[in-house]
Amino acid sequence: MGQRSDTKEKMVQAAKQLIRERGYNATAFSDVLKLSAAPRGSVYFHFPGGKSQLAREAAEAHAHEQVAIIDRAADHAPSAARLVELYMDLGRDLMVNSGYGWGCGIAPLVTEGASQDSAEVGETSRRTFSEIVDRFAFHFVLLGVDRAEARVLADAVMAGVEGAMITSRALRSPAPYDSIRTVLVRYADAVSQKAASRKRD
Amino acid sequence: MGQRSDTKEKMVQAAKQLIRERGYNATAFSDVLKLSAAPRGSVYFHFPGGKSQLAREAAEAHAHEQVAIIDRAADHAPSAARLVELYMDLGRDLMVNSGYGWGCGIAPLVTEGASQDSAEVGETSRRTFSEIVDRFAFHFVLLGVDRAEARVLADAVMAGVEGAMITSRALRSPAPYDSIRTVLVRYADAVSQKAASRKRD
Repeated sequence: MGQRSDTKEKMVQAAKQLIRERGYNATAFSDVLKLSAAPRGSVYFHFPGGKSQLAREAAEAHAHEQVAIIDRAADHAPSAARLVELYMDLGRDLMVNSGYGWGCGIAPLVTEGASQDSAEVGETSRRTFSEIVDRFAFHFVLLGVDRAEARVLADAVMAGVEGAMITSRALRSPAPYDSIRTVLVRYADAVSQKAASRKRD
Repeated sequence: MGQRSDTKEKMVQAAKQLIRERGYNATAFSDVLKLSAAPRGSVYFHFPGGKSQLAREAAEAHAHEQVAIIDRAADHAPSAARLVELYMDLGRDLMVNSGYGWGCGIAPLVTEGASQDSAEVGETSRRTFSEIVDRFAFHFVLLGVDRAEARVLADAVMAGVEGAMITSRALRSPAPYDSIRTVLVRYADAVSQKAASRKRD
C-alpha cells in the first residue's frame, strides 16, 4: 500500500509539474509515467477516471501546496501587507528560477476548456481557487483587516498572481510581479490602517 | 484579392474566438474552417506556417482589438482611474455575457508551452502583451501620471485583467474583476493626485 501510494503521489506531482509547464492538453499520460518513473499499469489502477482524474488531483495538490505556502508566510507576517509581499516574492523567485517555465497548476484546466467540458473538472477548478482565496482572506482577517475588505484583497491577490504568472512568462521579466505587488501592498496598507484607526476610536 | 483577404480575416477571427474559449492545443484547423465557413484549401494557402502562424495572427488580432478598446475608453476617461474603470467594466461585462466562456487570446500560447517551443510564437506573445501594456502606459502618461508610475500601473492592469479572466471563469463570478478593479483604481487615484500636487508645487 505504501509502495502504491508512493507511485500515485509521484504521478500526481509529475502531472502537476507538466501542467504548470505546458498545460493540460499537452500533458500526456506517457510523459507523466516517464517523469515519475511509474510502471504503465499504474495509469488505470491509480486513475480509473483517466486523465481528467489525474489533472483534478494535480490541481488539488497545487492548491494544498499554495495554502501551505500562505500559512508559512503568515507565520512571518505581522501585517496583511507583509503577507502579500512575502507571497508575491516567493512566486516571483520561483518564476525567475524556473526560467519563466512554471505557471499555475489550475489555470490550464480553465483556459483549455476542460472545466467547461467536464462538470467534475469545473468543480475542481472552482473549489481549488476558492480554497486559496479563502485562506488569504482568513489570514487577512486575523491580521486585522475588515472581513469585506479582506475578501476584496484576497480576490485581488489571487487574480494579480495568476495574471503576473502569465505576463511575466510572456515578457520573460519579473516586472509584472513587482508592479502588481506595489499596487496590492498599497491597498493592503490602506485597509490595515483603516482597521487600526477604527479600533482606536 | 478582396475575397481571399476576407477568408483569411474570417479564419483569424474564428481562431481567436476558439483560442479564447478552449486554448491553443484544443483548437484544430478543422474547427477554424467550420466556424469561418472557409474552404479546406485555405489552410496552407493563407497560413503556410501552419497552426503556429494562425495562432500568432490570432494573438495579434486580439492585441489590436484590445489597443482599440483602450483608445476608445481613453477618449471618455478624464483620469487614469477612470480609464482603468472603463476598461475593467468592459472586460467584466464581456466575461459575464459570454457565460464565463471567453478568456485571453494570447495567454494560451504562453501557458500551453507554444511560446517556449517556438521562438516565433514566444516573440509574438512578448510583443502582443507589450503592445497592450505600452498603450495603457501611454494613456496614463497623457492623463498626467508620472512615467515610472504609469509603467507600474500599466503592468498591474495587464496582470490584474489576465488573472481576473482566469479566476472569474473558474469561480463563475464577476467578483475577481470587481476586486482587482477596486485595488487598481485606488492606486491610479493615488498616483494621479501625487502628480497633480507636484504640478501645483
